[in-house]
Amino acid sequence: MSELALHPAAQDLLFRQARTANTFTTEPVTEDQVRAIYDLVKYAPTAFNQSPLRVVLIRSDEARERLVDLVDEGNRRKTAAAPLTAILSADNEFHEELPALLPHFPRAKELFFADRPVREESTLLNAALQAGYFILGVRAAGLAAGPMTGFDFTGVRKEFLDDDHTPLMVVNIGRPGADAWYPRSPRPAYHEVVTTV
Amino acid sequence: MSELALHPAAQDLLFRQARTANTFTTEPVTEDQVRAIYDLVKYAPTAFNQSPLRVVLIRSDEARERLVDLVDEGNRRKTAAAPLTAILSADNEFHEELPALLPHFPRAKELFFADRPVREESTLLNAALQAGYFILGVRAAGLAAGPMTGFDFTGVRKEFLDDDHTPLMVVNIGRPGADAWYPRSPRPAYHEVVTTV
Repeated sequence: MSELALHPAAQDLLFRQARTANTFTTEPVTEDQVRAIYDLVKYAPTAFNQSPLRVVLIRSDEARERLVDLVDEGNRRKTAAAPLTAILSADNEFHEELPALLPHFPRAKELFFADRPVREESTLLNAALQAGYFILGVRAAGLAAGPMTGFDFTGVRKEFLDDDHTPLMVVNIGRPGADAWYPRSPRPAYHEVVTTV
Repeated sequence: MSELALHPAAQDLLFRQARTANTFTTEPVTEDQVRAIYDLVKYAPTAFNQSPLRVVLIRSDEARERLVDLVDEGNRRKTAAAPLTAILSADNEFHEELPALLPHFPRAKELFFADRPVREESTLLNAALQAGYFILGVRAAGLAAGPMTGFDFTGVRKEFLDDDHTPLMVVNIGRPGADAWYPRSPRPAYHEVVTTV
């Protein structure tokens, strides 16, 4: 793609060859790998630099069992077998950190985000943006991501989060195993997505 | 970053050196560039491959004037001067395309997305994910993105979209101009974002 500055190998790693994995090898995903992913994707933009994405890593057998019980039937086997699983959520109280994150405009906290419903709407959009960055970050580490929304949101919130955190998705992470993915489904054509005025 | 498979130059292009631009050169952003961005980012995952992001490109002077009137005061000058501006929205009727996008499971349309409120929640999350991919796609084209949520959502919906499309953000796109960005604000530390259970 001569129109792109990104190296073709990087295009493949992040977008073209990377796929949503449904099976994984047993190779562990290390803390250093997750730190490297975070230290990369944290730079991508959010509104007011609010950075509201929060991540719960499931590492203990006990926590994994509790999570597996809360995902849909069709997601259980892969979630039980993934070397690492992450619960991504949106922090509804992100404004508490805003003065530190936006030092040139500390009043943004009170001016724009005093109301919880406003925060809930803003954090949902911005944490979902960051979830997109995170999935590509997992791929940037040479790992496969298996994002899922098929789980009991209320149960996950109760078991692993709290009222101040809204679950967005659960992501299995690891090296792809045997028969890791289905054939790729078609994507919408450009003219179905992009219009010009 | 030895933990990452992504080449350091690509890390810089997408995350580390790329910044939210507030000024742009007059160099046009071509249709071929936007197509190349879309043809890259369309492969990143969404739930049920629903691919609900829609993009309105503002190219005519008439449309740009209408849009500039609808963005917040502080966003007007840069939106008036950007070589290209995109309105990103979520398609609340994405389920109509689902049988074509998910050929192995065409019943998903009726089974999961018959209800508009369910669709609205799902499209918001998934289109926001895709907005994250899109911003990184703009950077992959060697361009700078200037995403904004400071605009009249009701007005933009009325002027450029319809009831079936929920606006997410407006993104200025181009080569960065003089003094294109502020100093980068701090990001949350790893331990403030990631917990392990």
